Amino acid sequence: MPRFKLILEYDGTGFVGWQRQDNGQSVQGVLEVAIAKLCGEPCSVTAAGRTDSGVHASGQVAHFDCPKALGADTVRDAINFHLKPRPVAVVAAEAVGDNFHARFSATGRSYRYRLINRRAPLALDANRAWWVPNALDAEAMAEGARHLLGHHDFTSFRASECQAKSPIKTLDVLEVTRDGDAITVIAAARSFLHHQVRNMVGTLKLVGEGKWRPDDVRIALEARDRKAGGPTAPARGLYLTGVRY
Amino acid sequence: MPRFKLILEYDGTGFVGWQRQDNGQSVQGVLEVAIAKLCGEPCSVTAAGRTDSGVHASGQVAHFDCPKALGADTVRDAINFHLKPRPVAVVAAEAVGDNFHARFSATGRSYRYRLINRRAPLALDANRAWWVPNALDAEAMAEGARHLLGHHDFTSFRASECQAKSPIKTLDVLEVTRDGDAITVIAAARSFLHHQVRNMVGTLKLVGEGKWRPDDVRIALEARDRKAGGPTAPARGLYLTGVRY
Repeated sequence: MPRFKLILEYDGTGFVGWQRQDNGQSVQGVLEVAIAKLCGEPCSVTAAGRTDSGVHASGQVAHFDCPKALGADTVRDAINFHLKPRPVAVVAAEAVGDNFHARFSATGRSYRYRLINRRAPLALDANRAWWVPNALDAEAMAEGARHLLGHHDFTSFRASECQAKSPIKTLDVLEVTRDGDAITVIAAARSFLHHQVRNMVGTLKLVGEGKWRPDDVRIALEARDRKAGGPTAPARGLYLTGVRY
Repeated sequence: MPRFKLILEYDGTGFVGWQRQDNGQSVQGVLEVAIAKLCGEPCSVTAAGRTDSGVHASGQVAHFDCPKALGADTVRDAINFHLKPRPVAVVAAEAVGDNFHARFSATGRSYRYRLINRRAPLALDANRAWWVPNALDAEAMAEGARHLLGHHDFTSFRASECQAKSPIKTLDVLEVTRDGDAITVIAAARSFLHHQVRNMVGTLKLVGEGKWRPDDVRIALEARDRKAGGPTAPARGLYLTGVRY
C-alpha cells in the first residue's frame, strides 16, 4: 500500500488538539474522515507532533497508507475537497517509502510563538497570539532564552503529564525578536517535551516584564523542578511551523 | 465637548461593513453601543472610510464627541472593555480639536490586499486573504499596476453605486510583491472610489494569470468604462491599514 506524507496547515482554535478524543473534534479525526472518503475505507493518520487544543500548524507532517493507487496531487486535492469547510488544509502530499514514519523519522521540529505586546486587546489576532498588555523587554527575553540553548535536563519546563522517557533534550534554536507590537519566539530541536515551548515562553514573559532577571532562567533550568519554571503560555500563540526528516 | 480620534483594528468577517445598517451587525454599530456605555448617552462615530462587509482594518480612524471629561487612555481602555467579545479594538485614542474630522481631514489612505497563491485552500488565512490556486506571475502584476499610478479617470475601476462626485483620483502607490505563496498589493492615495482597490486587484489577478498582458491594464483604464476593467476581488483580502492627516 503506497504511503503518503502530508504537510498540513490548521487553525487549532476549534479543535481538542491533534489527537482523536471523545470530548470534541480533533484534527486527526476530521482528517481521517476526509481520507476515508477518498480511500473508501477507514485509514489511520500519524502526525509528527500531537499538538494541544488551540495550537496551530503551518507545517505539521503526517502520513497514512492509501489502499488505492493515486497520484500525490490527487491525494492532496481530494483530501482538501473532503475537508471543507474545516480549517485544515493539505498544503502538499508526497508518495514516500513505507520506512517513512511522520513521528519516528523526524529529526527536527520548529515552532513559532507569537505575542502581541500592546494595551489594546486583539481583534485581527484573537486566538492567533498571546495578548500581553504590560510592556515587555524583548532584548531581556532574548538574553534569558540563550540560557536554555544546548543539551540540558528540561524538567523545569516539562508538563507533569509528559510521557517522554527522558527530560534531556538539545535545544538548537530559541530566538526572541520584536517587530513593532509583535514579539516572536522561534524554537527548534530534534524533539520537545510536552508543553516545553509554552513553558519556556511563559518563563521568558516573566523576564520581559522585569519580574525575573535573564539569569533567573538559568537558575530555573538548573533546579530541574517544574515548580521552578514559569507558567505555561496559552496555546493560541503557538504554531508548529515545520518538521525536518 | 472634547473630541477623540480613535485608531481601530477589526476583523470584518462577521460584519455587514463599517456603516450602521438594518440587516446585521456593523462595526459602527458595535462601537456606538460601546461608546454609549462609556458616555451614558448615545454618541455617533464617524470613520475615515466606510469599509464594506468582510473588509478588515488595522488602521481605520474614527472620531466622536465625548460628553464627559476623560483621559485618552481611559477612553481607549473603557471602549475596549465594552467592545468585548467583538473582534473590534481601539488601538489608540487621542484628544483632538473639534476641527478634526476623521473623514474630511484625511489626506491619505492606505490599503493592503493579500492573495495566497497555492493549490491548497486556506486554513489559517480563511477569511483573511483571497485564495488563488492558479499560478500568478507577481512581476507581471507589478508591471500592470504601474499603468495605474498617477492622476487618472478611474471609471473603469469604480463601483456603479459609487457616490464620489468625480471619478478622477491620484493613485500614489500600487505595489505588488511576492513572499513565498503570499502576494501583497499595497495601495495609497488621498482617497479612493468605491471598490477601487478591489477592482484594481481583480484586474491585476487577470494579468497574473496571463489572461491579460500588463499593457491591457492601461487600455482598460483609458476605456473609462467599468465593463473594461476586471472583476471585483473578494472583500476578505482587503485591509484598511492607515489614514494620514
